[in-house]
Amino acid sequence: MNCILLPAANFQHDNASAYINDLAQIAHVNKVLGAKVGGTLKVGQLGGSLGTATIENIAADSIQLRDVDLTIDPPPKLNLTVVLALPRPKVLRRLIMDMTALGVNDIILINSYRTQKSYWQSPMLNRLDEFVLEGLQQGVDTMAPRVTLQKRFKPFVEDELTSFITNRAIVAHPYSALSFSQYVHQQLTKPKAPNGSVLPSMVFIGAEGGWIDYEIDLLTAQGCAAVNIGPRILRTEAAVNVILGQWLLYSQY
Amino acid sequence: MNCILLPAANFQHDNASAYINDLAQIAHVNKVLGAKVGGTLKVGQLGGSLGTATIENIAADSIQLRDVDLTIDPPPKLNLTVVLALPRPKVLRRLIMDMTALGVNDIILINSYRTQKSYWQSPMLNRLDEFVLEGLQQGVDTMAPRVTLQKRFKPFVEDELTSFITNRAIVAHPYSALSFSQYVHQQLTKPKAPNGSVLPSMVFIGAEGGWIDYEIDLLTAQGCAAVNIGPRILRTEAAVNVILGQWLLYSQY
Repeated sequence: MNCILLPAANFQHDNASAYINDLAQIAHVNKVLGAKVGGTLKVGQLGGSLGTATIENIAADSIQLRDVDLTIDPPPKLNLTVVLALPRPKVLRRLIMDMTALGVNDIILINSYRTQKSYWQSPMLNRLDEFVLEGLQQGVDTMAPRVTLQKRFKPFVEDELTSFITNRAIVAHPYSALSFSQYVHQQLTKPKAPNGSVLPSMVFIGAEGGWIDYEIDLLTAQGCAAVNIGPRILRTEAAVNVILGQWLLYSQY
Repeated sequence: MNCILLPAANFQHDNASAYINDLAQIAHVNKVLGAKVGGTLKVGQLGGSLGTATIENIAADSIQLRDVDLTIDPPPKLNLTVVLALPRPKVLRRLIMDMTALGVNDIILINSYRTQKSYWQSPMLNRLDEFVLEGLQQGVDTMAPRVTLQKRFKPFVEDELTSFITNRAIVAHPYSALSFSQYVHQQLTKPKAPNGSVLPSMVFIGAEGGWIDYEIDLLTAQGCAAVNIGPRILRTEAAVNVILGQWLLYSQY
């Protein structure tokens, strides 16, 4: 928690004061930060700006803040949709946190052949807002990504993919002969997207075991390029961060 | 487990046959792969080559393999030492796995101001070989990285750092004004290392809460450059994969 994000409803007096009533946030202020009355906290308004506030009062179920000063814009979101095969519930929290912390704009959790049906019944899917909040507080951002669920792979790819891909799309596939860097260099010779980028605006990433050939074929038939990120096969969590790290690096050029 | 790695002692008859007696590997073959007698497995010899083998017999505590064919070299290791502040034991396994899967050559777990003393007593530190094996089997590699423990930060940095840095070193620090890409571009104007690279051969990465100013000052005094990887603060696991992903991308040029 590198900042404490509060909903707009927790701000008072024209945003000059605010209160924390979330127990996880209160525990963080007391136990991790060891903050006292008069101390300064990094805070933000969900969907708004970032800044600081001074602790006026600490009670068991509420911390009152004064001199709230929110003047810093959140960092820009990435022009990127990650379509992730619904992973094991155990890793879902960290994946949502990391994609949120890195600034992904849209997250689509999709069914895949290797997604077990039981994953769609997981109670973790009711806690996505909580994982997004954790990711925002980790990455020091206030703008939540849009997270949607797509239980059917084929109709999504066949009917909806074209409308989503305003620019370019890739699917991470360790068995593809084309590397991500080769892909980007190919794109440099092609017309740029309206925003001037040659980077994909949509990245498909598989869960444990990756995509099956049928899924890769469906995606490539819709114009999505299969790319590898090196000779080594990574866990989904590692792959997401490696690909996003490389995407970020290219986006600086 | 994208390949099954066996120690040299499990190979017989001039490497033509072999057996699996590790219960986790046996469970993987039976339950995840659903392999049967006559089926083919991806196997490798720890410290040796990769290839395939045919299942001759499956028993509860042993799987016998025949027609072992190990002719594929493991992927090259990265010329990179990661010095990681000893993290919470809970995340140690995944961090060792990911660094191993990505091909890091040397891993040094070091003490830092924000490393809790109790972490050094964790039983997880006795299981590092197991986590390395998991990482090798994930990344399809046979060469284990060297993993060492450094319980004292200051002597390591002051006395041993210079001998480790044959080329260049960076420390990941979200509050540095210099970005990793700016650092790499600065290096392009400087003499290359003997291996022709302008990339750091050593990367310091903090645990939760990062490095304190004193640690950053000690490191920079020894020639280690503090760099950020963007405006967002990441979990250690995410940061490790993002930095290694970017390092890998640069290493292709």
